[in-house]
Amino acid sequence: MIKVSVLYPHKEGAGFNMNYYLASHIPMVRSKLGAACKGAAVEQGVAGGAPGTQPAYAVMCHLSFDTVEAFQAAFAPHAATIMADIPNYTAIQPVIQISEVKLS
Amino acid sequence: MIKVSVLYPHKEGAGFNMNYYLASHIPMVRSKLGAACKGAAVEQGVAGGAPGTQPAYAVMCHLSFDTVEAFQAAFAPHAATIMADIPNYTAIQPVIQISEVKLS
Repeated sequence: MIKVSVLYPHKEGAGFNMNYYLASHIPMVRSKLGAACKGAAVEQGVAGGAPGTQPAYAVMCHLSFDTVEAFQAAFAPHAATIMADIPNYTAIQPVIQISEVKLS
Repeated sequence: MIKVSVLYPHKEGAGFNMNYYLASHIPMVRSKLGAACKGAAVEQGVAGGAPGTQPAYAVMCHLSFDTVEAFQAAFAPHAATIMADIPNYTAIQPVIQISEVKLS
């Protein structure tokens, strides 16, 4: 199993419309990716590790797939549509990474 | 539900003993945190979002708790022991953040 993590860095003053993200963006992404996407998790940053600090990421999203190839095959045909929806909820440029699940 | 994410930045040449981490560190952490810790997930970074790039994080660990207060109460008495074990598997300084689970 692999995870595609989409990490939105916390930036002072940068907005993120969580309502739109959960009600519209994520359902659209899941609909486009279809059965290849085995799960989706969304977390909103609350605090950093040290007292009184901000989180590194305002929002983290993790999408699960069986393999990197399964992700690429599902994502490629819809990449432009999915990316074009980002400005509808934030101006933050996400950091993306692919990881192998070692424990879940 | 909240998640405490422990993110180890990818650094060229920096080692990370995943075998020790999974077989010794994580079980020790779960044993110390007890029933307050509702789940643990570990992912190993494979690639960045763009072709041919490295992942931002070599390893990501996510620990689940009911509340921030439950995490703090469980972690504080064992913080020193848990932190002292880090050099046994890596020299990488982790980024820590607390997040609220919005979708799981």
